[in-house]
Amino acid sequence: MSVPADWAYDMLLFCQRNPKPCPVLDVTDTGSWSTPLAPDADLRTDLPGYRVWCDGELVEEPTDVLAHWRDDLVSFLIGCSFTFEWALAAAGVPLRHVEQGRNVAMYVTDRQCREAGRLRGPMVVSMRPVPPGGLAAAIRESALLPAVHGAPVHCGDPGGLGIADLDRPDFGDPVAAEPDDIPVFWACGVTPQAAVMASRPPFAITHAPGRMFITDARDEQYRVA
Amino acid sequence: MSVPADWAYDMLLFCQRNPKPCPVLDVTDTGSWSTPLAPDADLRTDLPGYRVWCDGELVEEPTDVLAHWRDDLVSFLIGCSFTFEWALAAAGVPLRHVEQGRNVAMYVTDRQCREAGRLRGPMVVSMRPVPPGGLAAAIRESALLPAVHGAPVHCGDPGGLGIADLDRPDFGDPVAAEPDDIPVFWACGVTPQAAVMASRPPFAITHAPGRMFITDARDEQYRVA
Repeated sequence: MSVPADWAYDMLLFCQRNPKPCPVLDVTDTGSWSTPLAPDADLRTDLPGYRVWCDGELVEEPTDVLAHWRDDLVSFLIGCSFTFEWALAAAGVPLRHVEQGRNVAMYVTDRQCREAGRLRGPMVVSMRPVPPGGLAAAIRESALLPAVHGAPVHCGDPGGLGIADLDRPDFGDPVAAEPDDIPVFWACGVTPQAAVMASRPPFAITHAPGRMFITDARDEQYRVA
Repeated sequence: MSVPADWAYDMLLFCQRNPKPCPVLDVTDTGSWSTPLAPDADLRTDLPGYRVWCDGELVEEPTDVLAHWRDDLVSFLIGCSFTFEWALAAAGVPLRHVEQGRNVAMYVTDRQCREAGRLRGPMVVSMRPVPPGGLAAAIRESALLPAVHGAPVHCGDPGGLGIADLDRPDFGDPVAAEPDDIPVFWACGVTPQAAVMASRPPFAITHAPGRMFITDARDEQYRVA
């Protein structure tokens, strides 16, 4: 996500204070659209989908932001839970949304993030239905990757996060669960855009939920042990 | 460590770009001397030792900074490798400096941190001599605590980090090793004060090396798995 430089400290502090939903992998210099995580990439064109925000309102959903770019933008690269899915799959945990060819299901929760300067907002989570036999592996494997959200923040009753209906996600697609599956909730990198909606900075660019930037970094490099 | 607000973004970015030596546990609001990590503490008086810096020069080493406090200071709480020593001890890894009643040995390396704004400087490391039979446990246990520097950055030949003589640490005390011990080097929270020395902000307050702030947080809470 990109915000004007005079909002960059608030955003970086918001991420520091909320590291589960907002693990920062890189921050660009002001005005730069490049990152050492993918030296040949252009952050203005190489995401599969963008959202452009003015005063907290979604104004456009383009596939590049060349026309929206400003020299005062600072960009934050936030880790994504899609990165740990290889580790879940390798440990034998089925990925229902992948099997079903769908985006992951994401929900706005009733847990408020810790405020930072002018920024506040609720935590957003992604949910994966996990069979009981895979729960321990799902928790263990994701825990070892804290830079891409780490261990789940909640398992089981969606009401514990204030989620009324799993079939109606706020972002992404509803995902069908098997009868014994346990819903497992991980903090989600859509949280900064929920903060944009709640806090209304004059301008921001984010990824479109589920349409993340792919870097050159190897998934394994974020595994702590 | 505390810096004036107009240096806070550079410092937070420096920490984000150098998370092994500078894992940030909390950042205060401007002018505040309190942290939710220890709600009853006063950051101006409750460290066992401080260093006060003007233009990158050490000007005083007091035991409180009441007389030096400024309303524009932002304070950064950086994780400390002393936190993972309980896990090493529990795994049977002997702690030579503790046995010898000494501070840990710390060294300035020839590895430069990634720059951030006006801040640059070398990485500082702490060194613990570890017997060969304890090396795997030392690496594994510290790796699970990335918020307090995580896995070692180097093992073995000190020359690999540009360290000429283990008997002459730059901070702390020299620590005697057993003949078979392997020197193991962890990134160290003295790195931000090496950045102060190299980058010369007009004013800064840091802890004195080895005289860290003790919070109410439990060591276990920083363990990712």
